[in-house]
Amino acid sequence: MPKLLQHRLDPASRLARLMFAEYGIAVDLEEIKPWTREPQLLELNPAATVPILIEEGEPPAVGVLAVVHTIEDRYSPSAVVGLFPAQSRDRAEMWRLCEWVLMKLNDEVTRYVIEEKIVKRDKRGATPDPAVLRVAKANLVEHMLYFNWLFATRHWIGGETMTLADFALAAHLSALDYLGDVDWEQAVETRQWYARIKSRPAFRTLLNDRVGGMPPHAGYADLDF
Amino acid sequence: MPKLLQHRLDPASRLARLMFAEYGIAVDLEEIKPWTREPQLLELNPAATVPILIEEGEPPAVGVLAVVHTIEDRYSPSAVVGLFPAQSRDRAEMWRLCEWVLMKLNDEVTRYVIEEKIVKRDKRGATPDPAVLRVAKANLVEHMLYFNWLFATRHWIGGETMTLADFALAAHLSALDYLGDVDWEQAVETRQWYARIKSRPAFRTLLNDRVGGMPPHAGYADLDF
Repeated sequence: MPKLLQHRLDPASRLARLMFAEYGIAVDLEEIKPWTREPQLLELNPAATVPILIEEGEPPAVGVLAVVHTIEDRYSPSAVVGLFPAQSRDRAEMWRLCEWVLMKLNDEVTRYVIEEKIVKRDKRGATPDPAVLRVAKANLVEHMLYFNWLFATRHWIGGETMTLADFALAAHLSALDYLGDVDWEQAVETRQWYARIKSRPAFRTLLNDRVGGMPPHAGYADLDF
Repeated sequence: MPKLLQHRLDPASRLARLMFAEYGIAVDLEEIKPWTREPQLLELNPAATVPILIEEGEPPAVGVLAVVHTIEDRYSPSAVVGLFPAQSRDRAEMWRLCEWVLMKLNDEVTRYVIEEKIVKRDKRGATPDPAVLRVAKANLVEHMLYFNWLFATRHWIGGETMTLADFALAAHLSALDYLGDVDWEQAVETRQWYARIKSRPAFRTLLNDRVGGMPPHAGYADLDF
């Protein structure tokens, strides 16, 4: 069985888990705290990031780009029904939106929220910085306006078909939603899309997650939120 | 002819140009300043980033992930001799290193140097912040140690074959080298690799670049630097 080194609320790990679940592949999840930079992690990945995919007889796939490509290569049932569209032009739109989520949304919102609320909680003597969280929240408002604008005319974020970009966004929003940072009242179009993707069987893996001593925000696991 | 909206010293644009040159495809370069956020740019890409690839009869490919995938899809001579290795495990290592460069090196070094030295120079009344440049320089030292360590045992950064990851790193280092920010004296192994990749015909497109009023650092265009 493939093994995934991951952290429950890490959005890149969540993206990998969604892909495995969507493709119906059982995966052994090994929970780690990448920020503690254990020697075993640094040996696999000097960048100290997750996810890392480990399979017998193969070198590890390290980092979100390597892992999503590897899962798609090995486990996509076929090029027609996988999460990567068959047409190059549709894949280009998928990559534009993946980049938006993995680089821009992560950079302006998610990584700050995870750092302040999860990493600092785990570090002795560190406390979340409210000023950083305020900036992340203000940035998220801008991102949600863009997503609402897209979903006003699109069923899925890249167009008519669900792709990796939907899973990437859902992975990030689900981590933020666990922590109570998504204002769904102000995001009607995005909420409709999220309700749809949240109802997929693949999503159950994430909705059952619990972080010790930190229960999810109300509505996190409700399909009718 | 495909058209690339780009900025000369933007490393992501340089990566796209290296791919086109390597594949022998003529491309019409349209120089823009993404930081001025012109309405025409925002309409194509609300993230206001380059490169953007425009081809007749196709929707634009926007952002570095979309552009590198699109160039590989449309112009790679074949899966055997392209910049993406044929084996999934080799592509995983390529993506790990692409992520290192596009996300980590960019995040910790290149984007600060570009912002302080290029963007601020272009903005009325803005001056580079020496404290930011000092941090970027210190981070670059750490990155170069890792690259030296890789190149001590590898001919190309991902292994025995040149891949997209070599072009990604060369694109970033070439932009930093133009600005005089690479200390080659302290980077023997990486320098040998850079001399090799710099000698490729594809690299000429970058070595002829000049930014108005800002000549390149000595050695930038020398194959024997």
